[in-house]
Amino acid sequence: MTGEMIAVDWGTTNRRAYLIDAEGKVLQTERDGMGLLAVPPGGFADQIAEIRAKMGDLPVLLAGMVGSAKGWVNVPYLSCPAGLADLGGALHWVEPGRTAIVPGLCDPAGDVMRGEEVQLLGAVAAGLVPGDALLCQPGTHCKWARMAGGRVESFATAMTGEIFALLKNHSLLADFLGGEVGDDEAFRAGVRDGLTGRLTTRLFRVRAAALLGQRSIEDSASYTSGLMIGHDVGGEGLREGDPVHILADPHLGRLYASAVHIAGGQPILIDSHAAFVAGIFRLWKASQI
Amino acid sequence: MTGEMIAVDWGTTNRRAYLIDAEGKVLQTERDGMGLLAVPPGGFADQIAEIRAKMGDLPVLLAGMVGSAKGWVNVPYLSCPAGLADLGGALHWVEPGRTAIVPGLCDPAGDVMRGEEVQLLGAVAAGLVPGDALLCQPGTHCKWARMAGGRVESFATAMTGEIFALLKNHSLLADFLGGEVGDDEAFRAGVRDGLTGRLTTRLFRVRAAALLGQRSIEDSASYTSGLMIGHDVGGEGLREGDPVHILADPHLGRLYASAVHIAGGQPILIDSHAAFVAGIFRLWKASQI
Repeated sequence: MTGEMIAVDWGTTNRRAYLIDAEGKVLQTERDGMGLLAVPPGGFADQIAEIRAKMGDLPVLLAGMVGSAKGWVNVPYLSCPAGLADLGGALHWVEPGRTAIVPGLCDPAGDVMRGEEVQLLGAVAAGLVPGDALLCQPGTHCKWARMAGGRVESFATAMTGEIFALLKNHSLLADFLGGEVGDDEAFRAGVRDGLTGRLTTRLFRVRAAALLGQRSIEDSASYTSGLMIGHDVGGEGLREGDPVHILADPHLGRLYASAVHIAGGQPILIDSHAAFVAGIFRLWKASQI
Repeated sequence: MTGEMIAVDWGTTNRRAYLIDAEGKVLQTERDGMGLLAVPPGGFADQIAEIRAKMGDLPVLLAGMVGSAKGWVNVPYLSCPAGLADLGGALHWVEPGRTAIVPGLCDPAGDVMRGEEVQLLGAVAAGLVPGDALLCQPGTHCKWARMAGGRVESFATAMTGEIFALLKNHSLLADFLGGEVGDDEAFRAGVRDGLTGRLTTRLFRVRAAALLGQRSIEDSASYTSGLMIGHDVGGEGLREGDPVHILADPHLGRLYASAVHIAGGQPILIDSHAAFVAGIFRLWKASQI
């Protein structure tokens, strides 16, 4: 079996490269910390040469923050609604036929994404989720995308993971957030409290509850993660039984699934790497016609 | 005119000492950066001696974080509802008849305050606000207190100022928050957006709007302050015309007044220093009976 193309999901801090064969099957995966921040100025072409040296002298499609102002080339956003055909028609060829960057999407309501669009559209194209669906991509900046007719209709980002990290590293709560986060009773209590109400008060009370002996410091990190994810899920206004397709790693996926369940929704976990590969391989195939 | 007592509002980073005469009038005020963090271990008694050397060898009443685990003595919280008589009966005398610390309050719903209670109860005692009222004390940790029959019935704290500072100093938004904050059109747009909806999405979109050319970077700090204060005020669920008594410095007071007005409430600005002095002087008088 030989590779047909190389796909790279290139973010700010991490990078994942896939060698893919003519049937769209992954032959090899390389994951490293060579995100944008680790690439020296003018160093992107060398990085691509290194990837080809490892995986083969093949065409390369790149997605993610590599296409931002802080990346290799600042590729303009495509505006929603947008589907795979729109993305395919707007690839930015750094070297014609050899190396291209997938554009990100913007929502006219004032939101942006780079990289997630390939997962979203790949999940639908591969039949992992229906063409009309609500998808959630948890992380530093959690994306909530509404798909309609197989295209990204609209989306919203929540700074859930980033704010949790700020609280943990720099806030008055830092001394209280050293514990483990898991889908435990403290987490679920946090979700219930976070679904409604003033987030900034819920957060202050994490410390107050510990001072007053109402909650142990050990439970505070899990509870606070629940608050943040509850606030995130609560913003979607789910109705009873609404399906939510979650594209995430197993740990975060389990936490969001628990929160969606508490909010009355129906969580469905989807393999985000399979979705990415399905999306970028279809973009590659379409570019060959 | 001679002083009768010294009152100290002693916080984590700042300290304010007042020399007060037998009628409750302030004869002298000293403000400095000798908050708890600046006092060496075991150094509180020396600090009090220095204050007496400046203002006179008089009884001293202390309020604020000086009564916390990180202060001089960890004085237990009094539980709400609580009034001046309750506080007066629970003064912690470090040196009988000479030096006392006012206890803080806790709300059984899981909230705490130290120092603000003197302002709240002083404002009512001095007739600056009615005995049944909603009071707001903006700041790093904004307090919202419901007064009933002249006592603090319940209260909630919002980490509004602290989270704004975290965003400005440590977040992905830091590059966008260098501008001035004022009660301008951007601030008011932020308030309107912040009153409802998912705060974490509103915040992410600050950066997105700048990237998409929808809002200038210069306006982003004012807009983001508006978002945070809007989220804060929105959590109170004000009805049309509800009075909100705001105890704050003029800058923050003006911002909160604007936000309360946008939310349909009726803002009333109160002199927070006068409220503190009125409260602590009454506590002193009551302790002399």
